[in-house]
Amino acid sequence: MKYLLTLLFVAFVSNAQIKKEQLDLMPWPQNINLKEGIFPLTKNFKVNITGNPNPRIFVGTTNFLRRLDGRTGLFLTQGFITKVNESPVAELQINCAQNGKIGLYEDESYQLDIQPNKIMINATTDLGALHALETLLQMLQNNSTSYYFPSATVTDLPRFTWRGVMIDVARHFQPVDVIKRNLDAMAAVKMNVFHWHLTDDQGWRIQVKKHPKLTSLASDGFFYTQEEIKSVVKYADERGILVVPEIDVPGHASAILTAYPEIGSKMIPFSNGTSEKNMQSTALASYGIERNAGIFNPTLDPSNPKTYQLLSEIFDEVCPLFPGAYFHIGGDENEGKDWDSNPKIQEFKKKNKLVTNHDLQTYFTMQLIPMLKKHGKQLMGWEEIMTKDMSKNAIIHSWKGPNEGVPVGQSLANAAKNGYKTVLSNGYYIDLVQGVDKHYLNDPIPKGSNLTVEEKARILGGEATMWSELVTPLTLDSRIWPRTAAIAERLWSNQDVVDLNSLHKRMKTISFRLEELGITHLRNKDVILRNISNNQGIKALEDFSNVCEPLKIYKRNAGGTEYQMYSPFTLFADACTPDAFDAFDFDTAVDRYLKNKNPENQLLVSSFLKKWIATNNDLVHLSLNAPLVHPILPLSKSLSDLSQQLLLVMENKQSLNVSLLHDLLEQCNSKDHADVELAVYTSLKKLIGA
Amino acid sequence: MKYLLTLLFVAFVSNAQIKKEQLDLMPWPQNINLKEGIFPLTKNFKVNITGNPNPRIFVGTTNFLRRLDGRTGLFLTQGFITKVNESPVAELQINCAQNGKIGLYEDESYQLDIQPNKIMINATTDLGALHALETLLQMLQNNSTSYYFPSATVTDLPRFTWRGVMIDVARHFQPVDVIKRNLDAMAAVKMNVFHWHLTDDQGWRIQVKKHPKLTSLASDGFFYTQEEIKSVVKYADERGILVVPEIDVPGHASAILTAYPEIGSKMIPFSNGTSEKNMQSTALASYGIERNAGIFNPTLDPSNPKTYQLLSEIFDEVCPLFPGAYFHIGGDENEGKDWDSNPKIQEFKKKNKLVTNHDLQTYFTMQLIPMLKKHGKQLMGWEEIMTKDMSKNAIIHSWKGPNEGVPVGQSLANAAKNGYKTVLSNGYYIDLVQGVDKHYLNDPIPKGSNLTVEEKARILGGEATMWSELVTPLTLDSRIWPRTAAIAERLWSNQDVVDLNSLHKRMKTISFRLEELGITHLRNKDVILRNISNNQGIKALEDFSNVCEPLKIYKRNAGGTEYQMYSPFTLFADACTPDAFDAFDFDTAVDRYLKNKNPENQLLVSSFLKKWIATNNDLVHLSLNAPLVHPILPLSKSLSDLSQQLLLVMENKQSLNVSLLHDLLEQCNSKDHADVELAVYTSLKKLIGA
Repeated sequence: MKYLLTLLFVAFVSNAQIKKEQLDLMPWPQNINLKEGIFPLTKNFKVNITGNPNPRIFVGTTNFLRRLDGRTGLFLTQGFITKVNESPVAELQINCAQNGKIGLYEDESYQLDIQPNKIMINATTDLGALHALETLLQMLQNNSTSYYFPSATVTDLPRFTWRGVMIDVARHFQPVDVIKRNLDAMAAVKMNVFHWHLTDDQGWRIQVKKHPKLTSLASDGFFYTQEEIKSVVKYADERGILVVPEIDVPGHASAILTAYPEIGSKMIPFSNGTSEKNMQSTALASYGIERNAGIFNPTLDPSNPKTYQLLSEIFDEVCPLFPGAYFHIGGDENEGKDWDSNPKIQEFKKKNKLVTNHDLQTYFTMQLIPMLKKHGKQLMGWEEIMTKDMSKNAIIHSWKGPNEGVPVGQSLANAAKNGYKTVLSNGYYIDLVQGVDKHYLNDPIPKGSNLTVEEKARILGGEATMWSELVTPLTLDSRIWPRTAAIAERLWSNQDVVDLNSLHKRMKTISFRLEELGITHLRNKDVILRNISNNQGIKALEDFSNVCEPLKIYKRNAGGTEYQMYSPFTLFADACTPDAFDAFDFDTAVDRYLKNKNPENQLLVSSFLKKWIATNNDLVHLSLNAPLVHPILPLSKSLSDLSQQLLLVMENKQSLNVSLLHDLLEQCNSKDHADVELAVYTSLKKLIGA
Repeated sequence: MKYLLTLLFVAFVSNAQIKKEQLDLMPWPQNINLKEGIFPLTKNFKVNITGNPNPRIFVGTTNFLRRLDGRTGLFLTQGFITKVNESPVAELQINCAQNGKIGLYEDESYQLDIQPNKIMINATTDLGALHALETLLQMLQNNSTSYYFPSATVTDLPRFTWRGVMIDVARHFQPVDVIKRNLDAMAAVKMNVFHWHLTDDQGWRIQVKKHPKLTSLASDGFFYTQEEIKSVVKYADERGILVVPEIDVPGHASAILTAYPEIGSKMIPFSNGTSEKNMQSTALASYGIERNAGIFNPTLDPSNPKTYQLLSEIFDEVCPLFPGAYFHIGGDENEGKDWDSNPKIQEFKKKNKLVTNHDLQTYFTMQLIPMLKKHGKQLMGWEEIMTKDMSKNAIIHSWKGPNEGVPVGQSLANAAKNGYKTVLSNGYYIDLVQGVDKHYLNDPIPKGSNLTVEEKARILGGEATMWSELVTPLTLDSRIWPRTAAIAERLWSNQDVVDLNSLHKRMKTISFRLEELGITHLRNKDVILRNISNNQGIKALEDFSNVCEPLKIYKRNAGGTEYQMYSPFTLFADACTPDAFDAFDFDTAVDRYLKNKNPENQLLVSSFLKKWIATNNDLVHLSLNAPLVHPILPLSKSLSDLSQQLLLVMENKQSLNVSLLHDLLEQCNSKDHADVELAVYTSLKKLIGA
């Protein structure tokens, strides 16, 4: 009896009533109510499905079981789930009233009820049930020896219907397995739109059987076959994700024009004629796959019927591969330079009473609408397509913001006011490697918005954009995750869920759990550092990378020519990530120390400083046999130098030399080394009182 | 002048004449001659190709440039190589006399000549040139700030023409990207045959359009489409690798019989009849996909014409996908139990004068030869197919050895003596997770072999076999690599290259370099440990995993039923590998200490012991919030307990208690915990003098 009491007491302590703040759910559900008691997980745990779901729930539930088993090592006895009502007495009962349709406005809500003996998921559609399974996986808790779910009820549904990620596979091709693992990660944070940027100046990435030149001449051999496209679409469907393809026209056309120069706008006058003759006799310009980053001139000729014929034939093949109702035609960043210099096009404008190049582009875009409508597709384009004559059926993808000299949210609001459905990407440009806070607080409909209810309803949601100038399959995941989980929460959860401390705490767990889906953001960092270290051990590099971040916005590749598309992305900057791991903790330590300079708080700060001094010594040692370490040394030395001085001052071994400290601090603000910056600069500045 | 002298001196020191022993080449070339001087690598380094090569050399050379650039971060200016003689003045000139044909006996030789200003590769075929590029990548050296190749001449060719890896994708499916990265790794160590074990009891993994039931009923949705098969074959071809498919018949047939039970051998007598009636009236047995490991009864019925019709139709679709000249039909482990109990089959044997089941299997196999010959394919099978009536055109795959009660090398020698071409896999069973030494020293034609020259010539080479009962895509690479690099050397290099110290030293570098090809053996170990640690930090787990190895041979899954195919392979044993990292170093330390117990040598040993004591404490701490750590604790405690006693004795703080030490030692010999064993047990035993 005494033994039993002890056991009960242990169980009580270790399974003590959990609080909401302890749960690492993301996106945070609309309603969650924790109750007393737990559901203990054992190897006999089984799932049963009832109702009329789409078969994707069988794939999803089987995957759920494998993930749960992989985490816990319980050897769950249930293998594959293949049909309704296979295990009527199972502890987890999932009921889906109807077959979920992939697309906007579908019911994705769910109810999850965890009781000490049973768990119930009720959802209108299997899409909601899949979301519930992700929530349940996030609810998993453990004590020292076992796993359990806390008793709770969750009722949940998304705030926005479009919760997307765009991946640019043109700048750097991303193989099918890379796309699939990212679809898994998207589903894990309840995102439901994958926007596939398939073409750009740097490559044409989708097979078109009628026009094999597109891939044989303009892909370097890196493209998806139609069967691969289908397999990705199927994989996405099984995870409740809509795939929206993008064929970017009329600009960003270097690749398509490499294959079909005859539909380009560029005119090359003969050099050996009179000027009058030049006006009439032009030769075909030739184009090449672009190797740099930037905005380029190659543009389709909107006055040439062959342009429309080719696009129509491409759409005829591409559209049926994507069962969804939306097709993105790009339309961005066409500066029309080749239009301006082409007399034939100028004449066409006059003839059709098109005053500006915007008018001409609208003319062009309007021709595409029926080509897509024929396949049941609605046209979507970047915000440049929004002109006064553009069809109101088009969906406007808002991307410009302060970087482009436009106020935050302006084009999104304008689109909604003008009667367009619209999706927000400005503020979600994850390729700019900025910290997560900014993305997280970027609300598609900020509080105090003066839009009407109808206008607000036109704002479908948002989309994180992963442009790939500076990422390869090795680093892509680390640029998307874990920050995109915060964007997913912004688009799913209540507008009032904005606590940054909570976000940072939960992101650590979410980031860790993404590994089980194959996401490589953590593991590939070490791979890059091992190469840089020349296999001499990575601890010093890892410690230093935890206070460094890659240069942000467009600073790493100013002018777009430092890196070609085939340049090495195996450098220190590629191993570093936004939200450097130690920066947040150091900042917290500095704040505490500045509030109260007691020995404990001083130790918190000084242990960082001592680590950085040791790291610098280790890096110098490493560099004796590792050329790739050298570019990092100046910045590491700056941090070490400042740390040494700060330690002396903090430990009262030296009086404060303000000017010396400021000099050393400014050396820590350098952006000249290894394409990274010190993420602890601001905290150091605070510490010095500068 | 003084400055210049210093510079020259530095250069002299750091680029000091390198010695052969410093090179980490694998497989070791037949002839290598180092000369004075170096070829310094700069960003302007370019390659040019001349001669009449197969276009695969362009893919190979472009990949070579990307790998070189990724390692060095030099930003090489040359992007894609697409045709002959693109850069006539390039520093690296590659000349291939002729188009290499994928298959046996092709000329794979090469000459590599590195001079201070230029590098020349001469090869009869592009296949030899690809090997030369791998050697060149392995020759890369660095000083503290730059990269270079040492001047040298290499002339090289393989000892055996069949240097293979088999991957079983039936027990655990391995997606296309997993296969492709392993093909890259194979090519990096000059292997040239990929044997694809596509079917077994646990799944049918290849699409057959005429018989969709094979995959819809017997694959759990995990199979390759024909287009995926083609893409793998093309990828292999570009890397000089022949693909040999295997459809395993007539045994290992649970999956095929799940789809087509009507061609199975099992007879189910009606239960409600007289015994005479039972003999005649039988019902169709039903089969299911096997979830366990082992040898199972389901076997095709060799007396049923439908069996041959189905196989013929399967071959008609499968053969054209593989341009190579060889087709593996398995033929192993058929115990014929269902044949014995089926009167119809017994009658068939009598009628056809087939005395034994071996005779019956030979009859069966002989029917397949013309079906394959029709497609230009030669039949290959596991050694069980070698019976007196088997065609001499069949290739015999030797796999049995001491584990099966057969002397080493016996079936291989017998096959060669009987006039068959033959390939050795016994001794190369890498799935048994044994140490590398044994595989490395396993010579297909050992010195002192009494085979004639003709008989020896029939021994084509060898093949590492990666059976997949206990591996998933997460762990596969760590079971194949780096040990298979040693097998590659055995099959390529001179028979006299057998130095184990050299092997271990070079393997460290080879293992590290495999990461650049995407091989995940290092990175995924950390992923598994992070999950086990419940994201609390992996150092203690990593340290302990460096002295643990997964249970060997068939001990981890005795009886084949502890693990189902869908069990979790995310356990500590899955993170551990053969050749535990610290075991070799500890053994060396013990040997030195036993030879001379000076303080320095004592420190070497005691630092290990202290680490293990600390590790155990850390693991105990970790386990408070990580259930998956618990199974490891007893073994960690045993090692810690013994280490504590040994330290006391070594430091003369306690007199030797032999009996206590022996007790503690034997606890370190346990195989009862977490499916691992301590790899330092033998060294500890030596240390104690037991």
